[in-house]
Amino acid sequence: IVSIGDDTAAWSGHDQTELLTTDTVVEGVHFVPETSSWVSVGWKGLASNLSDIASMGGMPTYAVVTLGLPQDALILDVEKLYDGLLEAANAFGTTIVGGDIVTSPVFFMTIALTGVTQHVPMLRSNAQPGDQIATTGTLGGSAAGLAILLSKEIPNISNRQTLIDKHQRPRPRVAEAQVLARAGVRCATDVSDGLLTNLETICDRSGHSAYVNTTWVPVDPELINVFPESALSMALSGGEDYELLFTAPPYIMTKLQGQLDDGIHIIGTVESNQDHWSSSKMRNAIFLFDGDGNSVELPDPGWDHFRK
Amino acid sequence: IVSIGDDTAAWSGHDQTELLTTDTVVEGVHFVPETSSWVSVGWKGLASNLSDIASMGGMPTYAVVTLGLPQDALILDVEKLYDGLLEAANAFGTTIVGGDIVTSPVFFMTIALTGVTQHVPMLRSNAQPGDQIATTGTLGGSAAGLAILLSKEIPNISNRQTLIDKHQRPRPRVAEAQVLARAGVRCATDVSDGLLTNLETICDRSGHSAYVNTTWVPVDPELINVFPESALSMALSGGEDYELLFTAPPYIMTKLQGQLDDGIHIIGTVESNQDHWSSSKMRNAIFLFDGDGNSVELPDPGWDHFRK
Repeated sequence: IVSIGDDTAAWSGHDQTELLTTDTVVEGVHFVPETSSWVSVGWKGLASNLSDIASMGGMPTYAVVTLGLPQDALILDVEKLYDGLLEAANAFGTTIVGGDIVTSPVFFMTIALTGVTQHVPMLRSNAQPGDQIATTGTLGGSAAGLAILLSKEIPNISNRQTLIDKHQRPRPRVAEAQVLARAGVRCATDVSDGLLTNLETICDRSGHSAYVNTTWVPVDPELINVFPESALSMALSGGEDYELLFTAPPYIMTKLQGQLDDGIHIIGTVESNQDHWSSSKMRNAIFLFDGDGNSVELPDPGWDHFRK
Repeated sequence: IVSIGDDTAAWSGHDQTELLTTDTVVEGVHFVPETSSWVSVGWKGLASNLSDIASMGGMPTYAVVTLGLPQDALILDVEKLYDGLLEAANAFGTTIVGGDIVTSPVFFMTIALTGVTQHVPMLRSNAQPGDQIATTGTLGGSAAGLAILLSKEIPNISNRQTLIDKHQRPRPRVAEAQVLARAGVRCATDVSDGLLTNLETICDRSGHSAYVNTTWVPVDPELINVFPESALSMALSGGEDYELLFTAPPYIMTKLQGQLDDGIHIIGTVESNQDHWSSSKMRNAIFLFDGDGNSVELPDPGWDHFRK
């Protein structure tokens, strides 16, 4: 009903569940200009909010964008930032309806995004023993792109730009989330902080354990080419892939296999955690195994300095 | 349905108009610790968003709060900030359902607030020739409070704390806005930037002029006691009073006079602006007159350095 040009944005609601999320990036904290073009800061800022709405099963509706700009900010950079915002908004079906520009000693951007869903929201707390654990897409590509941007030693490999795009232009799984919610998935989150960290949150909130077969983790194939040694570790712990991580009973997973173009990747199962409190292998509640069923030590987080 | 603890906040919508607004404060830009306790930063940050929802005729519903905190921020200060936020949330009927804390070289706070209304939203663009112009409450008290906080010369007057409270703890007109919208008011905004600045916005958006009788402007009586010389100027240009500024036909104004405890103050009329483009008295589209109908020069903005 109203967008930019009045005190608030206004729209008509209907009889559905409405969603609201917010996410912030600060220059020097969440990104540095060396690894992030302004277009990508805009795109990625909106993408992370879109991914939050998607991981609840929602369709994004309206966004307000607040920019904190230093006095010496260049109009050209802000225009590029808006280009990235608008590209992401157009690509994933949301509308930027307002916001605020304030003076700040440091650049920051806060986005608030609303969404709606006709389905039961997919919650981190809804994992059930017997559920399978799955992800969309592949993992670790964003971490690989960041590592390439930060490294001065990596040769000019052919898939360089593909991996950089995975870091700078992640694609939130908005459409896929609708398929999941419609199929009856009740528990989901997004891989924003890294597979293990986000899975840990599901375990914490649900009160259960996760058993993960590391050979089933969908490591990005281009990542394997460039960083064969660290590939699994980066897929397990690299953040900002914005793939969906979800749990559901096997019959729903079977149904989903045929419904998503890129398929889904089952990586493990949810178990009651009551028997495992004394296990030394436990990182909170996640147990990793290899293809032979042997325990896998949690990967060395040595490359973690790549992460922001 | 969901608040803190999942990717987004979620709630059920109904068949009504939904509102979304956002507002940010940055330390050193929008406030300085010398004139703002942390409690008041929290209160005022939410109050300004509440006022935006009110000025559309909405009832506030849910807020998300993003804090950018320096590494050396004190937990105690953050707790005080939340105290202020929660006090304002409780006082005006909204719920803080989530948010984000990020590291930042400078403190900032961004709030996004949703609201709903069953009425036609009150827009800045809806002023009509023949409308009267009115405000709730009194004006200039916030500017007076700030001036007192910044001055080292002002004696320890008896109403010192009252005026400081008007600056640090402004009360958005949430309930009054409901009365206006129900009575049929179609055009409103809030006095956030100063009466003349906000009235100018109404004129710009509506395409009309405003004639204001300066003797009718409800100057805060405590302000007159402390700053008799600057009182009118501070009432006309001082911001952050968060009173409602609105226009409506006389029959609606008459109806409203009996419905609001503090009454309303009619300060002028809206006129078609086509005849006045050449007037030298025009500050865009606002004409000020005294009680005898003589033009009043716009006040010297000399005290403007008090404003942030």
